[in-house]
Formats: sequence, structure tokens, C-alpha cells
Amino acid sequence: MPIPTIEFKNNSVKIIDQTRLPVSYKIISCKNIKQLWEAIRTMQVRGAPALGVAAAFGVYLGIKDFRGNNNQFLKKLKSVIRYLGSSRPTAVNLFWSLERMNKLARKNRNKPVAQIKMMILKEAKKIFQEDRFVSRKMGDFGQGLIKNNDRILTICNAGALATADYGTALALIYKAKEKGKNIKVFACETRPLLQGARLTTWELKKHKIDTTLICDNMAASLMSQKKIDKVITGADRIASNGDSANKIGTYNLAVLAKYHHIPFYIVAPSSSFDLKLKTGKGIPIEQRSKEEVTVINNKRIAAKNVKVYNPAFDVTPHQLITAIVTEKGIIRPPFIKNIKRLLKNA
Amino acid sequence: MPIPTIEFKNNSVKIIDQTRLPVSYKIISCKNIKQLWEAIRTMQVRGAPALGVAAAFGVYLGIKDFRGNNNQFLKKLKSVIRYLGSSRPTAVNLFWSLERMNKLARKNRNKPVAQIKMMILKEAKKIFQEDRFVSRKMGDFGQGLIKNNDRILTICNAGALATADYGTALALIYKAKEKGKNIKVFACETRPLLQGARLTTWELKKHKIDTTLICDNMAASLMSQKKIDKVITGADRIASNGDSANKIGTYNLAVLAKYHHIPFYIVAPSSSFDLKLKTGKGIPIEQRSKEEVTVINNKRIAAKNVKVYNPAFDVTPHQLITAIVTEKGIIRPPFIKNIKRLLKNA
Repeated sequence: MPIPTIEFKNNSVKIIDQTRLPVSYKIISCKNIKQLWEAIRTMQVRGAPALGVAAAFGVYLGIKDFRGNNNQFLKKLKSVIRYLGSSRPTAVNLFWSLERMNKLARKNRNKPVAQIKMMILKEAKKIFQEDRFVSRKMGDFGQGLIKNNDRILTICNAGALATADYGTALALIYKAKEKGKNIKVFACETRPLLQGARLTTWELKKHKIDTTLICDNMAASLMSQKKIDKVITGADRIASNGDSANKIGTYNLAVLAKYHHIPFYIVAPSSSFDLKLKTGKGIPIEQRSKEEVTVINNKRIAAKNVKVYNPAFDVTPHQLITAIVTEKGIIRPPFIKNIKRLLKNA
Repeated sequence: MPIPTIEFKNNSVKIIDQTRLPVSYKIISCKNIKQLWEAIRTMQVRGAPALGVAAAFGVYLGIKDFRGNNNQFLKKLKSVIRYLGSSRPTAVNLFWSLERMNKLARKNRNKPVAQIKMMILKEAKKIFQEDRFVSRKMGDFGQGLIKNNDRILTICNAGALATADYGTALALIYKAKEKGKNIKVFACETRPLLQGARLTTWELKKHKIDTTLICDNMAASLMSQKKIDKVITGADRIASNGDSANKIGTYNLAVLAKYHHIPFYIVAPSSSFDLKLKTGKGIPIEQRSKEEVTVINNKRIAAKNVKVYNPAFDVTPHQLITAIVTEKGIIRPPFIKNIKRLLKNA
């Protein structure tokens, strides 16, 4: 039973405030685009697929009360889309979703404004439904990679809380469990914002999955003791050669997996691919505030005025990736050829 | 100017309470062996060399008020040593120091008890002075490895706060700076207890070293951008083949350094070698409480009742180590031969 990470009800986007988990479970209601922008920026809602869904409903929030003619409407839509795009730069699903709305509106630019508004809402609901379907498809394809008694390492939260349904990386685990496979998950806590500790352990416990929390620097120790069979993570943007941006620390795990001869899998919907990019070098990496690192639970943990390096993501080169699981199938090397084949011809 | 991490004054062991840094600087006074045991256990004092010094003074605290005959004294000494040895299992300096006290007392077992007590105090002071000397010698030998404008990554605190003087890994940096070299240090925060964030940034800022704090999972990202020239860490116990136990996360950095062709150096006094051990497999690894991981600054950050893996140390195999810097010189591979030559014949 997936968690209602995001819903659209009574002209509002309802989301679980993920900054409060696991200590408290609170649904917040974004009634306007500014509230939604803040929710994305402060990571009350996060996860590449969920950001795609949130941005789609965000467009509707941004235009639903607009009054004016068609030209003015398209201008308004453009500014709404630019505004939502300024919230977070790395996950491409957000831009994919905004572009889909943009195309829809331009295609129907001569229809009555009220009708375009309804089409936008319908499209957002469609993106939401697609995300649920896609999540389950990834789970179905990917669960075949998981063996009974596998011990799986993951980072950040690539679960139900990151999507509108079962998740990406964790969808494989939920589906494998449904097939009766016994699985142990090791969750990296994922500093600085601790999504692994706060969200993944909470979500996995809810699904009664055997879960062990570790600090990010403990992964190598487990691998050297042969206690990890697979590493499975999500992705925020994948270039056409398979290079994948994901939560900071993912590249670290990929290097460790290679050194210890452990398969490393990425799970992401086709909307996470950015085929305009040749390699991961072109992916913009969001730098976040130093306070995310120097202050934990309202208490300073470092010397005053120390410099901080705080990128939200890193890029794992395709050479370190065993396979990428999508809703259209599993992609294995050579990635350039196989990504093109599966995604462009689908 | 080194920081007075540990001192013996007025029959008390005075230490900086490292659990309070960097928010407050407080000297605590251990007047009896139980207080000292607690200070070691809770890591108010930590760092392999500093633990050696603390344990030596601890023996004196344990026997100074003893009244009885020589046989009773030796029995008391034995229980004092066993008690101090139960505080933390991994750093061998602690046991090395206790064994040195034991040998001294046994050699002088027929002398008056009062005289043996004075000899023990004198020996503890000698260990303290030796540690200061050894720290500077490691710095002198090791600084030659550091080039002008080097960007150095370190983990945990292997500085003045870990010894009675300049430190181990950080001694190289202080000595290189004294030689006029320009150095940038990247400090891994070192979860779960954040010694890198709390202690290393505080100490380096005091010494006016250019310091950047990162979360442990960001090291690979820096390395892939060619922003790290060397990794330098301390060690808590080194086997006769060079396998080195150090703070959890060190092995992770060693694998990353190898993958990115970055030299990886260990800095440790000869008292950190355990030549009875053939390999690192024999080093006992301390497992610490789950609350160190699940609670930060008094607030829970993970699902209730989640399992936790929390080893305080990991072991870096000698194959990943470029060289080991000691107070007797720099040891390079083949380690078995060269460790024996430098340490046994010294």
C-alpha cells in the first residue's frame, strides 16, 4: 500500500511534509504556486518523479485564477513555468513535466482559456497516474534482478516518498517482497539532510522490510565483509551515455561497488533521461547552503565560519553502472546504443 | 602552539571535554580512575596517542591511594589495568601504555610500594613527554611529503586534540605550514560523532589553516573533480603487514584514493603498531551504541526501532596505503619487511 506522498484535492496540492518525518507525520496543503515553490525548495516534497508530478500540478495552481486573453495567458504560463523551474535545478523530471505542459498549451493556444486550464489540470492528473503506473512497471521489471536473501544497499530515498507510488529503487524491493523473496536493506543515512535515515527507514519499516541504518561512511566496511549483494539507487538525471546524477554519495557507492565486485543498479523512469546531454558533464549540480552541513537539529556542529562544500548531487559515470531499470525495460551496456534503442523507439 | 588536550596537575588528569566542542570549551578534571574511564568511554578524551597518555595517568590515579603490602599492590595494579583496558578495545596505544606500566611495576616489585607509585607517576609523565616529541618527529618526517598548494583530505581528528601535542596526520600539516607551504585541508565531518566537523575544523581554524568541511559522502565528488592531492589520516592500530585500523570511513577513503590515483598516507607513532598481529583481521573493532547514529543533538533522526550497524573503526588493507609516517621515519611497501626493519631494529 503506497504512501500518499502527493495528491491533488480541492484545488490544492497535498503533500506529506518530508522535513518533519519520522518524528511527525503532517500533510500540508499548497493552495498557490508560491507555497508549492517553497515546498520544493525546502524539500518538503522531493524525489525526481515526485517533483515532476508536483511541478505539473504547480502549473495548474499558477494559472487557475488567471483572467485575460489567450496571448496574456501564454505569457502568464511562461512566467509560471520559469518560476517553477527556478526551484531546483538537477532533477530533469521537473523540467520534463513543465515542458509537457508548455507543449500542450501551445498546441491548443487558440482554444478558450478556460478550456486550456482544464486541459492542463487533466494533463497534470495524467502525469500523476502515469507516475504510479511507471513506478509499478519499474518494480516488475527490476524485481527479477533481486534474488532471495539478497542484502541490498541504497542511499537517500528512492521509495514511495519520492514518487506518487511504489518508488524507483525501492519499487524493486516491494515487488520482490510481493513475489515472496526475503530481502534485507541497508540504508545509508545520506548526509546532510538524512533522507535515508529519516525517510527510507520510516518507509521500509511501514512496509515491514528488514532494514538496517548505517552512516554513509560505513558502506565500505560492510562491503569488505561481503555483507552487501547489490547496490540500488534512483537517479535525478541521466545523460544519453548513461552517466547518472543522483543524491550526493551515490558516486562514492558506485566506486566502492566496483572495487568489491558488487553489481550497481540505477532505477529511474524514462522521464529522468535527458537525451540532449551527451555525458554527465552537462548536468547542472545544485549547490545548497552551508548551514545544511554545519547545523543539525538547530545546533552548530562545526567551527564558526568554516568553509563548506555542499553539492546536492554527484554524477556516476556509466562505466560504474551494471544496468539501468526503467518502466520500458532494463538497459545494459553499451548504454549509448541501448538507451537510444529502448527510449527513442519506444 | 599546541592545544592542552591532556595535562596532569594537582593529582588530577585535566582534559578538554571534546564532546562539547566547538560550542563550548571546558576543561574537566578526572580525580579518580572511574571518572577517567568514563571520560575515555564517552570520548571526552579520544585519539589513539592521547588514549595512551590518559591510560598511563589513569594507572597512577588507580593506585595512588592504595594502602597495603607489595603483593596486594600488584593485585590492585592488575585490576586497575584490566579496568582501564575495558574502556575502549581498538586503539592499541592504550594497551601499550598499560603494558609498559605493568612491566615497570613487575620489574620493581620488591621496592617499597610508595616508591613504585612514584615510579609509575614518573613513567606516565615520560609517556606524556615522549608523545609530544613523537608528534613533532612525525610532523618533521612527514611534512616532506606535502607540496606547496597541496589540497589534503582528512577524516576524524588526528590533530592536537588526539595527542599531547601537534597530532599525527595534522602534525604534517602544521609542520608544512611552519616551512611556509600553502595548504588547503578538506575535513570529512566523520559521522556518527562528527569529530571532523566538531574537532578538526575547530583546531585547524585556531591554527589559521584554510579549511573546508564536507560530509563523508562528498569525498568522491571532490576527487573526481581533481580537487584532492593527498589523503592523510591517523591510525588506531597497525598490524605487522601494514593493515591499519582507523576511524570508520577511512577504508572508504582509501578505496576512493586508489580509484582516483591519489596517494593515501597513514601517520601514527610506533606505539600504534601491534606486531603480534600478522594482518588487520586480528584487530578487534569496537561496536558502539545505535543511539550514536539514530539521535543527533537530542533529536531522533530515524524510524523507531530500526536496526543499526555502528562500528567505530574499519581496517584499510596495506595494498591501499602509499606510506606510513612514524616518528622513526617513513615506511613504504613492502610493508612486512620495512615495518620490521624500522621498528624492531630501532
